[in-house]
Amino acid sequence: MSKTKVLLVGSGALGIVAAYTLEYNGFAEVTVVVRSGYRKASTEGYKIDSVQFGSIDHWKPMKMVSSVHEAVANGEVYDYIFVSVKNLPDSPTPCEMIIESAMKTNPNTAVILCQNGIDIEKPLIEKYPGHVILSCVSLIGCTNIDCVVTQMTPDNVQLGVFENPTLKDRARAEQILDKFISIYRMKEGKNVVNKDTNVRQTRWQKLLYNAAVNTSTALTDLDCSRTAMAGCKEAIWRPVMREIYAIAKSDGYTLPPELEDIMLNISDGLFYTPSMLVDVRMNRMIEVETIVGNPLRIAEKHGNVAPHLSMIYHLLKMVQFRIKEKQGLICVDDSVKEYKTTDEYAKGF
Amino acid sequence: MSKTKVLLVGSGALGIVAAYTLEYNGFAEVTVVVRSGYRKASTEGYKIDSVQFGSIDHWKPMKMVSSVHEAVANGEVYDYIFVSVKNLPDSPTPCEMIIESAMKTNPNTAVILCQNGIDIEKPLIEKYPGHVILSCVSLIGCTNIDCVVTQMTPDNVQLGVFENPTLKDRARAEQILDKFISIYRMKEGKNVVNKDTNVRQTRWQKLLYNAAVNTSTALTDLDCSRTAMAGCKEAIWRPVMREIYAIAKSDGYTLPPELEDIMLNISDGLFYTPSMLVDVRMNRMIEVETIVGNPLRIAEKHGNVAPHLSMIYHLLKMVQFRIKEKQGLICVDDSVKEYKTTDEYAKGF
Repeated sequence: MSKTKVLLVGSGALGIVAAYTLEYNGFAEVTVVVRSGYRKASTEGYKIDSVQFGSIDHWKPMKMVSSVHEAVANGEVYDYIFVSVKNLPDSPTPCEMIIESAMKTNPNTAVILCQNGIDIEKPLIEKYPGHVILSCVSLIGCTNIDCVVTQMTPDNVQLGVFENPTLKDRARAEQILDKFISIYRMKEGKNVVNKDTNVRQTRWQKLLYNAAVNTSTALTDLDCSRTAMAGCKEAIWRPVMREIYAIAKSDGYTLPPELEDIMLNISDGLFYTPSMLVDVRMNRMIEVETIVGNPLRIAEKHGNVAPHLSMIYHLLKMVQFRIKEKQGLICVDDSVKEYKTTDEYAKGF
Repeated sequence: MSKTKVLLVGSGALGIVAAYTLEYNGFAEVTVVVRSGYRKASTEGYKIDSVQFGSIDHWKPMKMVSSVHEAVANGEVYDYIFVSVKNLPDSPTPCEMIIESAMKTNPNTAVILCQNGIDIEKPLIEKYPGHVILSCVSLIGCTNIDCVVTQMTPDNVQLGVFENPTLKDRARAEQILDKFISIYRMKEGKNVVNKDTNVRQTRWQKLLYNAAVNTSTALTDLDCSRTAMAGCKEAIWRPVMREIYAIAKSDGYTLPPELEDIMLNISDGLFYTPSMLVDVRMNRMIEVETIVGNPLRIAEKHGNVAPHLSMIYHLLKMVQFRIKEKQGLICVDDSVKEYKTTDEYAKGF
């Protein structure tokens, strides 16, 4: 039986764990696109320290390329494109653009969006009608810092089919989902791979954590445990989570009441650095639009008010501005300063 | 006539401009306490680049000491203690402690608090009943970076007597106020020194700016103009200012409606770095309690809800936690991380 062809775009910690898992199971032929750090990854490989796989030195996926273009340069066709790059609709290259050349080569390619946030499937459904778009929601604690991958908690994913009005054959979509589950699930419960029959509900539940925890750690440059020590749980996380509950409800999804406290306490003692904080520290763009902007737009549509989340959003948009300027995506001329006269300045009184 | 003796505590930009002004006018003998950077200041002096005084190299005040203790070591007595250190009730040395040794030597010493925030006089009135405490609210754009003082906008201060139930003789307090105004005011209107007959009103008005602008620039590491470009005015500054209006009103103070837009636009084109942002960049503690915490406590007392200001407050408290840890004032043991099992971790679903 020929192996399933998977193009894995995004070599963050999560992508590397997924690639390793697929190769470990042996049913897939994985091509990993490493967009940044390709030279180091392709020469030295990855150092993996994992609760699931133990310690591995110098690991390289069987196929490694530096771009999606390169991955299809010889006419390669993929059954699945596993997307674990960050979802940045406010960047010059949102993810539906990144995978464009691979989508063109096969009308049957399914896309797996292994990313946080809500409404992330919308731009893909619009650009690629008829393609199956799968949702992968991951609960995993892991980091990849300069090819050193640390996995602190076991891989735990929920896989399902996104609501998609352009899909003709729902049964076929389910088969495509089941096949991926079968090649990703490990023996003896070494990872948790669940079929998700209510994708949007799952995403709202995950958002409860991300909208509160990722965001506030990113804004204050403190890990989860330190933000909690500083009083964040009651003062910030809980009020933000309550607003997510209300927005989800207006969207038709009732989140379990006990989830609030579970999510508040899930990172206790871990001194965990959420991905958004890692991004801020590395001066990389943050997923502010899919994690905070989209929920707020849903709130606005339903006339919901969410002042705590709104503050988080606009402060993070400013952080994004700072990151974009550092990356040269925004150019500000601050050479001309307009000094004021006493009279002008004293208008404040 | 003997000169008025002024002890100036706090050699930030504002303190140096005040010391220079007092010496320039010639009616005061000024002793400047330089707590950090004393060596450089006492050997090389200050480089001043000022819209008001022009360029001065190697300026030193007549008397410079490295601590308040040193300033009173030989039994010196001061008519005024001008306090322009930061007001940090949450630090190991709040400002009523810093000036303690100088307060003991003279029961008639008046204190001038040239600091931002509301309710800042309360700890001083409690610790030093009967002393005249003056309010100095300054609208000035200036920075002091490693003994280089840049003054971008003219000095503009409002001086008044704080409400003080421990004061027996209000007329005497007014005389003490008038005397300081007369030694600080420059000829030909080179600075603006106004008598403030409604100190708390003035402080609420200044707070409108500080609670919105200082705080959000400090949280996002962007100067005023960049935060404005990133959409801050309508999304953050205005909602925060509206909450300050409401809290001030509950406290008995009606702020002029037109002030909102004046404060929103007052920094246009200046690319100004507010002091709180400077502090964050230098890893120095920030005035979060007097600028945000005290107004919120007043709101709470009157049953006011201020979610935008509350978010600002709690995020800044976390920034303060980060700064305190870097300064060694907080010690966190993050060497023991508690990893979790799949089951525990998966409770989130």
